[in-house]
Amino acid sequence: MIQYDHKVKVYYKDVDQMGIVYYSRYFEFFEEARTEMLSSIGLDYSDVEAQGVKLPVIEAYANYRKGAYFEQEIIIEIFIPEIPKAKLKIEYNVHPKESDEILVTGFTVHAFMNTSGRPIKAPAFIVEKIKKQMKV
Amino acid sequence: MIQYDHKVKVYYKDVDQMGIVYYSRYFEFFEEARTEMLSSIGLDYSDVEAQGVKLPVIEAYANYRKGAYFEQEIIIEIFIPEIPKAKLKIEYNVHPKESDEILVTGFTVHAFMNTSGRPIKAPAFIVEKIKKQMKV
Amino acid sequence: MIQYDHKVKVYYKDVDQMGIVYYSRYFEFFEEARTEMLSSIGLDYSDVEAQGVKLPVIEAYANYRKGAYFEQEIIIEIFIPEIPKAKLKIEYNVHPKESDEILVTGFTVHAFMNTSGRPIKAPAFIVEKIKKQMKV
Amino acid sequence: MIQYDHKVKVYYKDVDQMGIVYYSRYFEFFEEARTEMLSSIGLDYSDVEAQGVKLPVIEAYANYRKGAYFEQEIIIEIFIPEIPKAKLKIEYNVHPKESDEILVTGFTVHAFMNTSGRPIKAPAFIVEKIKKQMKV
Repeated sequence: MIQYDHKVKVYYKDVDQMGIVYYSRYFEFFEEARTEMLSSIGLDYSDVEAQGVKLPVIEAYANYRKGAYFEQEIIIEIFIPEIPKAKLKIEYNVHPKESDEILVTGFTVHAFMNTSGRPIKAPAFIVEKIKKQMKV
Repeated sequence: MIQYDHKVKVYYKDVDQMGIVYYSRYFEFFEEARTEMLSSIGLDYSDVEAQGVKLPVIEAYANYRKGAYFEQEIIIEIFIPEIPKAKLKIEYNVHPKESDEILVTGFTVHAFMNTSGRPIKAPAFIVEKIKKQMKV
Repeated sequence: MIQYDHKVKVYYKDVDQMGIVYYSRYFEFFEEARTEMLSSIGLDYSDVEAQGVKLPVIEAYANYRKGAYFEQEIIIEIFIPEIPKAKLKIEYNVHPKESDEILVTGFTVHAFMNTSGRPIKAPAFIVEKIKKQMKV
Repeated sequence: MIQYDHKVKVYYKDVDQMGIVYYSRYFEFFEEARTEMLSSIGLDYSDVEAQGVKLPVIEAYANYRKGAYFEQEIIIEIFIPEIPKAKLKIEYNVHPKESDEILVTGFTVHAFMNTSGRPIKAPAFIVEKIKKQMKV
């Protein structure tokens, strides 16, 4: 399993009139976290696209337990639970920087797509990077 | 079952560098659609809040089949599948204005919360409006 | 002068913890309004791009007098004050649907750019549409 | 003059189909930067609000010279040019992390507002912090 922690600070732009982060914003935080996680294993998403591969989101889910608030620092824990074949599943846990209390959990599922928009199998250069990291 | 159609037009603000609507934006479209649907059955969300009730999102899910693009007009079909008890589930289908082809499906689940942030049962004034509409 | 009115309804996604529309959101509303205004004079922005012309924003300004709030319906009044040469200036006034009280004013300035990203003079097909409309 | 640098990384959520950061997103980056700058001089905005003072944006301006792109790291340089009286002006320069080339410049102007929404003079506790820092 590959795991990575990404810190996000909550700003006014993220918070609604209930005083907590608006629900769709977590999916932006998830994107930040997975971009950084992929980069950390040698897969800058710009390079992935430059090699003609895209990873469009085909499913997205979040479960909201407790709201994050303005100026709070939160950690997006991100996991790749298994080696991808036709799809890549990524899981997320959000907790405050200062505690383990889970605020939000979620997942995204990504297809592998070539430049003509067709689904393809997980490319070898991606699978190798993930495998290599999982052995660590 | 309560059903409502809400039209959205896609603007530049919604579209990413793949040329399709960014995945989190659909959750904003879902919010627009459920605000209008609730309003259409006599439940303006401002009034609901004025009566001390909030409907925070506790789960959100979307399944992306095909991307909507800039200047496309899309319909958010929205459903309340059953009379709420402790939670309100709302379902969404997105299709182009001109066809029945499904682009995105999804759901949200909402708690009922009082002013002190405690979960409560579905308030009578909400259940009555939903029941009344379902009989139509 | 070309004038066009575009209605926007404020949703939860737009409102911050002060209970008013977050300041950057007006620039999204401005984009919606100018896309619709250009479309109304026969210039769908998709078609403009298909002809190899882009209109990137080079300046944006807003003056905020009073905040719009959740579920409020507001009108974006949009003006093209003069026939464009090297740049296109567009002006905006925001007021509630029910009154003339100005909430926000602003402007955007756009360059004309060709497919290689170079600035160009206002293309004839755009100037003609604007001129034609100004005579009405 | 108070100066502060805030780093932002550009993600997919920020980038439009021209492949550059959508124009309104810079105002979100400006907000991040000013929240961090104020915090760096001992003015956490949460504390400012807790003392009954708000700093609503009353003017916002940006001048766009060159677009930032996906996965680019950019620096928001932020300045308070003068000690505030009735209004606080803040200025911004955006450049790539790796160079001094200016991508975007801008400013925001903020009022000081009390809890009943009335404009007030710059509160002493804010002016003192700014003065103290300017002497450094």
